[in-house]
Amino acid sequence: MEEQSTSHSLSLSGSLHPHKALPTFYRREMASSHPGFHFLASWAVILLLLRIFSEGGKLLVIPIDGSHWLSMRLVVEQLRHRGHEIVVVAPEINLRIGASMHYSMKTYSVSYTREFVEAEFKKLGYKSFTPQTFLEKFSKITNITTMFFDSCKRLLSNKELMKYLEESMFDGVLMDPFFPCGQIVAEHLSIPSVYLVRGLPCSLDFHATLCPNPPSYIPRFFTHYTDRMGFFQRLGNLLVSLSSTLTCSFLYSPYDHLIKEFLQQEATLLELLSHASIWLMKYDFVFEYPRPVMPNMVLIGGITCTQEKQISKEFEAIVNASGEHGIVVFSLGSMVSEIPMKKGMEIADALGSVPQTVLWRYTGEVPPNLPKNVKLVKWLPQNDLLAHPKTRAFITHGGSHGVYEGICNAVPMVLMPLFGDQMDNAKRVESRGAGLTLNILEMTSKDISDALKAVINDKKYKENIQRLSDLHLDRPIHPLDLAVHWVEFVMRHKGAPHLRPAAHDLNWIQYHSLDVFAFLLAVVLLSLFISVKCCMFCCRRCCFKKGRKSKSGKSKTH
Amino acid sequence: MEEQSTSHSLSLSGSLHPHKALPTFYRREMASSHPGFHFLASWAVILLLLRIFSEGGKLLVIPIDGSHWLSMRLVVEQLRHRGHEIVVVAPEINLRIGASMHYSMKTYSVSYTREFVEAEFKKLGYKSFTPQTFLEKFSKITNITTMFFDSCKRLLSNKELMKYLEESMFDGVLMDPFFPCGQIVAEHLSIPSVYLVRGLPCSLDFHATLCPNPPSYIPRFFTHYTDRMGFFQRLGNLLVSLSSTLTCSFLYSPYDHLIKEFLQQEATLLELLSHASIWLMKYDFVFEYPRPVMPNMVLIGGITCTQEKQISKEFEAIVNASGEHGIVVFSLGSMVSEIPMKKGMEIADALGSVPQTVLWRYTGEVPPNLPKNVKLVKWLPQNDLLAHPKTRAFITHGGSHGVYEGICNAVPMVLMPLFGDQMDNAKRVESRGAGLTLNILEMTSKDISDALKAVINDKKYKENIQRLSDLHLDRPIHPLDLAVHWVEFVMRHKGAPHLRPAAHDLNWIQYHSLDVFAFLLAVVLLSLFISVKCCMFCCRRCCFKKGRKSKSGKSKTH
Repeated sequence: MEEQSTSHSLSLSGSLHPHKALPTFYRREMASSHPGFHFLASWAVILLLLRIFSEGGKLLVIPIDGSHWLSMRLVVEQLRHRGHEIVVVAPEINLRIGASMHYSMKTYSVSYTREFVEAEFKKLGYKSFTPQTFLEKFSKITNITTMFFDSCKRLLSNKELMKYLEESMFDGVLMDPFFPCGQIVAEHLSIPSVYLVRGLPCSLDFHATLCPNPPSYIPRFFTHYTDRMGFFQRLGNLLVSLSSTLTCSFLYSPYDHLIKEFLQQEATLLELLSHASIWLMKYDFVFEYPRPVMPNMVLIGGITCTQEKQISKEFEAIVNASGEHGIVVFSLGSMVSEIPMKKGMEIADALGSVPQTVLWRYTGEVPPNLPKNVKLVKWLPQNDLLAHPKTRAFITHGGSHGVYEGICNAVPMVLMPLFGDQMDNAKRVESRGAGLTLNILEMTSKDISDALKAVINDKKYKENIQRLSDLHLDRPIHPLDLAVHWVEFVMRHKGAPHLRPAAHDLNWIQYHSLDVFAFLLAVVLLSLFISVKCCMFCCRRCCFKKGRKSKSGKSKTH
Repeated sequence: MEEQSTSHSLSLSGSLHPHKALPTFYRREMASSHPGFHFLASWAVILLLLRIFSEGGKLLVIPIDGSHWLSMRLVVEQLRHRGHEIVVVAPEINLRIGASMHYSMKTYSVSYTREFVEAEFKKLGYKSFTPQTFLEKFSKITNITTMFFDSCKRLLSNKELMKYLEESMFDGVLMDPFFPCGQIVAEHLSIPSVYLVRGLPCSLDFHATLCPNPPSYIPRFFTHYTDRMGFFQRLGNLLVSLSSTLTCSFLYSPYDHLIKEFLQQEATLLELLSHASIWLMKYDFVFEYPRPVMPNMVLIGGITCTQEKQISKEFEAIVNASGEHGIVVFSLGSMVSEIPMKKGMEIADALGSVPQTVLWRYTGEVPPNLPKNVKLVKWLPQNDLLAHPKTRAFITHGGSHGVYEGICNAVPMVLMPLFGDQMDNAKRVESRGAGLTLNILEMTSKDISDALKAVINDKKYKENIQRLSDLHLDRPIHPLDLAVHWVEFVMRHKGAPHLRPAAHDLNWIQYHSLDVFAFLLAVVLLSLFISVKCCMFCCRRCCFKKGRKSKSGKSKTH
């Protein structure tokens, strides 16, 4: 699957220079109405090659390793097809970001080894099957942020690489803000940045964009709440929301010093992240809960779900042999290769209880009780298998890519969330009646079997996922086209400052109009005070007069 | 200009039924990759005709008269081209909404005459040139809302028409929420609604969508503020924001009774408006100030600016005769036909001071001092003239359609705002350095002449409007395509409930988490109280013991 190009063809075209380029809309019309359009294919190739060496832009890409790279790679490949020169900057040790014909790669040394990263990834998946304390979970997060911070220091101190970047005159940077170092590089090179992201810890994405984020109906990550919360859930959500600010300042405080040292700026990481021109958010509201968004957020949820390709003969044979019952696709993601044998046997036992053929992507030790209907494979073409009409269900860990592929192909899901945002993703699918979530720690063979049978046999799951799929796919433009358009937009126009709200120029007090409310309160209190004083003065005068009158009256009567 | 079809061709295609229809993205790919695509044109016509009578949907349109209809008509025409049956419901007396081959029209009687409407429109423009008190302005607004309310009552009580609507089985309603009666009809017919709107009084659009609307950086209409406000402007903006709630409840309270009577529901108009599936907002952030938006808001600013057409020989001759100096396009909008002679003479005087030929759309009495370079016309092809390379400036009243056409064609503007949102529009253009605003009441001939010369000769205006234009036109899909897509989306899926935030199920206190904050405060206070009580108890015990000790000590020493 690595480095293979997608079959998705872009309909956008145009040069990088705004004054030379016709707007996309006009360009599209001209292309399709040209009389000899289809016969000029060979010329088009020559022209494309010419454009590559003349008008294409130069893009810096700073990704992170792991599943995040899968969606970014798609965008990078399409940008390359459209004639841009792309330079990917990555640590020398990584598992997925390899050399490619689509980009040139520049690496920098890091303090860890390949074995360490592999062992960490393995642990991440394996440990999810045993109970962990909050401290253990938190230390996993701090480990990752420390690793990223260390990488960042090494990247910034790599003089040779930094000199190359300074001299390369990039038009922009496409980056994953999970590794926030990219923005420090962007500031140093004075180039605009585009982020590709699903979500950041502690709602950092919404803080940085100043996007309203009311805790009353927008559940925070890791709470596992839906958008419909009772009083105590809203209380919990608010507390998580408040405490996340503390967590963030703890997690990201080391960067402030680095920014000062490297950029000679007194700025926080949050301020730097707020400079992003465009946030390509892997969001779609058939999956995410409806919420406010900002003008510089572009929603590209489902970007990895491209047109299905013919599956290989090997898989086709398995699918065809499944008969009327069809197949079940089972994958716990590319990052989980092994699970504890006890769990493996329970799962195997459950899979044997359904008449479907189960295609299980698994590279660990084979459970001894593996039933006949289960085929273990080292890799499977997930999207293409899900798109097959014989696929009845999808057992997934609930990674957002997998969930979108499930939605895109309308396959009901059994979700076994392991770590990160997967439990929240699973809750979202379950709350829409399109799947069932299992607790990976407590699930028994019967639970798995019951859930699988339910999503296969109970029509409501299929109906619900079909409805979500219809809504998701009924869009005016494919998310990949949209992502490519906005990266090019930022490269063409040197950013997108017209999408930056003036709120960034206000401090917290001004943003919430607290100074204005305080002024109004002061005015009201002052008016009240003056009114009361006036009244008291009048009363006193009246009483005084009355007193004098009655006194004089009294003295008269005396 | 009336009823003429646009040359804009839509790239969307597909049937109305979600299960039969392939998603737009796939459909588009298939169409362009089909080998004999261009040779099947004749068949396509036949198929289109077949589709019109088989799979097209049925759309109810409830527009309002005047300039609002111009953009809605474009959408209606495109929807008709795509095979939908369209029924427009309008009052029998109106100025712009006429019979057409694109839709069938159903009218209902109203209490006013054509002469009354014409006179009102005339007054609206004419009176803008003389100072008006706040009460006069406010009474104009109440006149309009009263007229709309009266029309609404007549529409709902028109039994024949309502029976026809009930029996027509529409798939949805496209309406202008400025005439909120459309939503009452939608509720009565139980069909989903799509709104086409630029803005509603008292931020009703943002209240109804529960879209965050912080007064600290989002200027309210009629304040003429920009998004960068000083303390006292923020104070003013907040006060306007608060008082608008009162104004709205005054303006729209009659509807609550109508809703109760007609729909047998205890609901406010705001609640009804919140049921809209999609808000097609005539918004683009090159013109509007960046702000939060909600998932069911689709931004279609610039919808009226379609591809320019060849201008007629008559206009071409005038433009060509203008020589190297080029032309100035001058129009105060389709609703203003006459201006006071004194102002007319001042304007004419100013227009004579520039070497450009001025094309002035004006139907009133000709000013006696009309210079040679000014050509009065009863109508002009505004967008096509603005698109002409010889056009140097655009004098406009600042209606949003005109401003978008100015931006679209990169023509710097002199703005003479008259009423409604025009002053705010003018401020937006001016704040971006793309034009100059004149005060219609105070402007002298010299002011007009200076402003016109500045926008023509000072390069910065042209550069700024060119930049805005480049940003505005660099979009992945034309706003008209987008509008059509979302109307069809709502018709296909019977609404868009997945875009409705859960916030609608919360009351004001819950939405702002005030109950949660109150609970937290109570807990903190209670904890404090208990802690203080405990401390006091401990202290007292200590003191008591000490006291007893010292007493006993004392007695011992005694």
